[in-house]
Amino acid sequence: MSRFHKALICLPTFLLLVTGSLWAHPSGASVEKAIRAVLDAQVEAWNRGDVDTFMQSYWKSDKTEFVGASGIFRGWQVVLERYRKNYPDRRSMGTVHFSDLEVTVLSPNAALVVGKYHLQREADQPSGVFTLVFRKFPEGWRIINDHTSAVPNP
Amino acid sequence: MSRFHKALICLPTFLLLVTGSLWAHPSGASVEKAIRAVLDAQVEAWNRGDVDTFMQSYWKSDKTEFVGASGIFRGWQVVLERYRKNYPDRRSMGTVHFSDLEVTVLSPNAALVVGKYHLQREADQPSGVFTLVFRKFPEGWRIINDHTSAVPNP
Repeated sequence: MSRFHKALICLPTFLLLVTGSLWAHPSGASVEKAIRAVLDAQVEAWNRGDVDTFMQSYWKSDKTEFVGASGIFRGWQVVLERYRKNYPDRRSMGTVHFSDLEVTVLSPNAALVVGKYHLQREADQPSGVFTLVFRKFPEGWRIINDHTSAVPNP
Repeated sequence: MSRFHKALICLPTFLLLVTGSLWAHPSGASVEKAIRAVLDAQVEAWNRGDVDTFMQSYWKSDKTEFVGASGIFRGWQVVLERYRKNYPDRRSMGTVHFSDLEVTVLSPNAALVVGKYHLQREADQPSGVFTLVFRKFPEGWRIINDHTSAVPNP
């Protein structure tokens, strides 16, 4: 068997490995784009008063966490109830705006986002900072941990 | 060339891939153990008033962040100065204790830690919750993002 033929045997395996690795490891830019799209969808949902769609950005799991000055809220349903309690109507939800978003890709399936939120309401303008940990699931990128702190003029 | 010989050609490549992947992907248990060791070292350093060693657990980078109710502190040196300002002496540092630590391995080189801190001081007992994002560097596991919120009885 010639070297050429030996190389031919290895070629399909090599190509499979290379393309497999490309599929499994999307570029940092495409990860950032996908995550920003999830956050954009979240902001749009919030600003039309649609908490159910807003909550789709969180991993639908008992392990999903919201952390803040009131402690640790564990479980998608518990996080949803916290939002419903704190923002019972359109007026309390106001209009949200995220700024200074920084996306750090940790692996092909995990990322960290740091950013600031600004809420515009009739009575006040609460604001603050958040760190979000995202993981990629079959259904897409989802928040598995949200730690938010209120900060005036963050 | 027999099938046996063809297999022989592929064997070294196969073994290299398998062992390489084992080295590159330590088990979740060993990652958790390594991260808990970093946190234990941090607590020990704090409790002997050694802020410099405490700070070794943070990635020594301008990108390292401490996030909280005072906003975003960016850069290892800035985080160190925040600690020095808020805890100027042994008395203000008190004795720290972490509890309810949950380690989530995100990839072989990234992990999320959620936990609670309890400070014992002469004058008060501040406490709260934190989320830490760790990455593995040549020098070991380091915190790249610390988001901490004060919570009474977390």
